[in-house]
Amino acid sequence: MLNQIVGKHAESKKLESNILQISQDAKLMKAKHADVIDATVGMLHHEEGNVFKYQVVEDLLHHLSDAEIYHYAPVRGTNAFSEGVVNWVFGNHTQTIKEHFHYSVIPTTGGSGAISNTFYNFNDFGQKVLIANHYWTPYENFAFEANIELTTFQMYDDSDCFNIEDFRAKAMDLAHKQKRLCVLLNDPCNNPTGLCMSPDDWKAVVSVLNQVADEDIPVILIHDIAYVDYQLKDPQYSRETFLSYLDFHPNILAVVVFSGSKTFSLYGFRIGAQIGISKSKDIIDQFVRVGDYSVRGRFSSVSQPGMNIIGKIFTDPHYQNQFSQELIHARKLLKDRAILFMEEADKQGLKILPYCGGFFISIITQNNNIFKDLVQEHVFVIQMKKLIRIAISSLRLQDIPRLVSILRRHI
Amino acid sequence: MLNQIVGKHAESKKLESNILQISQDAKLMKAKHADVIDATVGMLHHEEGNVFKYQVVEDLLHHLSDAEIYHYAPVRGTNAFSEGVVNWVFGNHTQTIKEHFHYSVIPTTGGSGAISNTFYNFNDFGQKVLIANHYWTPYENFAFEANIELTTFQMYDDSDCFNIEDFRAKAMDLAHKQKRLCVLLNDPCNNPTGLCMSPDDWKAVVSVLNQVADEDIPVILIHDIAYVDYQLKDPQYSRETFLSYLDFHPNILAVVVFSGSKTFSLYGFRIGAQIGISKSKDIIDQFVRVGDYSVRGRFSSVSQPGMNIIGKIFTDPHYQNQFSQELIHARKLLKDRAILFMEEADKQGLKILPYCGGFFISIITQNNNIFKDLVQEHVFVIQMKKLIRIAISSLRLQDIPRLVSILRRHI
Repeated sequence: MLNQIVGKHAESKKLESNILQISQDAKLMKAKHADVIDATVGMLHHEEGNVFKYQVVEDLLHHLSDAEIYHYAPVRGTNAFSEGVVNWVFGNHTQTIKEHFHYSVIPTTGGSGAISNTFYNFNDFGQKVLIANHYWTPYENFAFEANIELTTFQMYDDSDCFNIEDFRAKAMDLAHKQKRLCVLLNDPCNNPTGLCMSPDDWKAVVSVLNQVADEDIPVILIHDIAYVDYQLKDPQYSRETFLSYLDFHPNILAVVVFSGSKTFSLYGFRIGAQIGISKSKDIIDQFVRVGDYSVRGRFSSVSQPGMNIIGKIFTDPHYQNQFSQELIHARKLLKDRAILFMEEADKQGLKILPYCGGFFISIITQNNNIFKDLVQEHVFVIQMKKLIRIAISSLRLQDIPRLVSILRRHI
Repeated sequence: MLNQIVGKHAESKKLESNILQISQDAKLMKAKHADVIDATVGMLHHEEGNVFKYQVVEDLLHHLSDAEIYHYAPVRGTNAFSEGVVNWVFGNHTQTIKEHFHYSVIPTTGGSGAISNTFYNFNDFGQKVLIANHYWTPYENFAFEANIELTTFQMYDDSDCFNIEDFRAKAMDLAHKQKRLCVLLNDPCNNPTGLCMSPDDWKAVVSVLNQVADEDIPVILIHDIAYVDYQLKDPQYSRETFLSYLDFHPNILAVVVFSGSKTFSLYGFRIGAQIGISKSKDIIDQFVRVGDYSVRGRFSSVSQPGMNIIGKIFTDPHYQNQFSQELIHARKLLKDRAILFMEEADKQGLKILPYCGGFFISIITQNNNIFKDLVQEHVFVIQMKKLIRIAISSLRLQDIPRLVSILRRHI
């Protein structure tokens, strides 16, 4: 009898690996051993080991009114938050996007909440979402929880570039099989690999999506831009991608996933947004209908202080300017580590996947036991299918040469 | 084609009424008209109109460390939070509960998140949860989002007492039909009615649940205690209910839903917990397995500042004492309003449902148009099936006589 207590669809739920849990383990060992290198969790840290907080966020947090802190947040979000997120995400291209598309913003519990809602609302139970073969493992949990599955295409071709051929083949195949194509791309600054797709990659992806939509098959593009502000190049460059949207077939729905955790270091607040974009008003109406429902039907409303801090930064030029200045420092922190890591890897002959931004550098490995091997050496990384992910976001410069040398021995 | 864009199970999702939205409308009208009475949303307010915040919460919020604010919260919650919640919820009976039961705490995005997760994990798709006929309407949204339904029993018998006969009949019927009994009871201080079930009511409920469990049918009791700290009587009295748990059949799972929103006025933070309780270790293991998964698979982790504030209050006797003193003031605010409302209702001949605590007083009505009729009079309440709900939590004493008189005219 006992195994009937949970619902049938929940029978085989089991958290296999939990990045946040491994990170706790790393912290525990670090408290005992000074030489522990913790490159697990995607939170930006200073060299001194404390989290990189934005001073403008901190100042605002401590000067919100009681209502801005304690009241329930409106389900649909404040105007300052929603319009602010759109302006920030699309940057110089905001006007162009607004002219060509209908759009709407649903505030969510972080980027995770946005992906979870979208998986659930835009697939039939049992259907599959197409995703690159290297992916952030919690996507599996979002899928299983939504009663759907993931299926993969090869992220890289032989030249370590985005593999548009395999994407096309897998997308067409899936679309024809299940009469729906829901694709998730985490770009730019892919987690875990650090890949940034080129404007040409994006053009080619849109061309595939259009071909499917031409056959009257529903197409949903989930575009996870969690690390959009942490490119090696100027962050405006990250926004060029959105120009490829202009070629969208009228019936495509894009859901752009914004992460307040990453952009503002508000990891602990659980605030993000899904931006629905389509040339079809009807599709955006449906996006709002089911998205609002999921917010209300899962957790009532999102973080009110988180929403108000972000709304203020995005709508007050003074705060926004202060934030942009601080973001330059954050990016420099990452860039210095990335460059040293790449130099060391080159020097020591450790082959890494091409990195162009974000919190992570990854290395292909054939060693299935590498996580444990590295823990023996007091190094904590995240092991994923055939690769290990190094969170340079929480790595000290001084640890990088030693880390590269340890990695090289076990890869 | 367009209507295929959402998944089949999401086709008919539509937010019919949204308390938070109606509350926004009330605020807008109040900005224009001084005489507006807003008795919509369940947030405790001072007489002067500002939200009742707890000073100890406020002080802690502004003195958390960076890690306590910005880091991701651990999925399983901190020990201070989890043990603190258990101690607080069960009060004087904590030791007794711990001796007789296995238990575990899963932090959630408010009480809403706890109910949503439990609906989803402990029912097969299409099954029904048994609930009183007067209920907080978002339960419908949690159910629909979880792909299940609600079915009701009559809350009151002819003497306006808890209708154990109808509960028994509907519970047995449902259990036999679907081979699962999942019951949600919102007690004490029911939202919307203000009912508090007596210890005898609880004994009778447990006896029904045991009878079902005896037939090897899975039994899940969702016990929503959002308003446990806002009884008219001493809050310890609210905890007496849990003594009825001691008679539980070994295979029953109780999920006690704790709301950080209500107990600490942390409405905007989205922090709560589900406490799983069972005499069966296997059942609690399953509770943890699927609950952890839902946290990770829906929103990654909960509010870190919310969790740490609550953890500190619950584990530091100084903070807890300060909180308990403030809670006395909060309860007095509510009590003064409730007593005046009941006196005025009595004087003016307005029949209300028996109230014994919580944020709401309700009145049965046959007027299907009452919401609009009252808006004409600049009064905002929440209309539910056959009743209107008055949030005394946000009602000024001086408005009560006029409100009762307006209600009497339209009921």
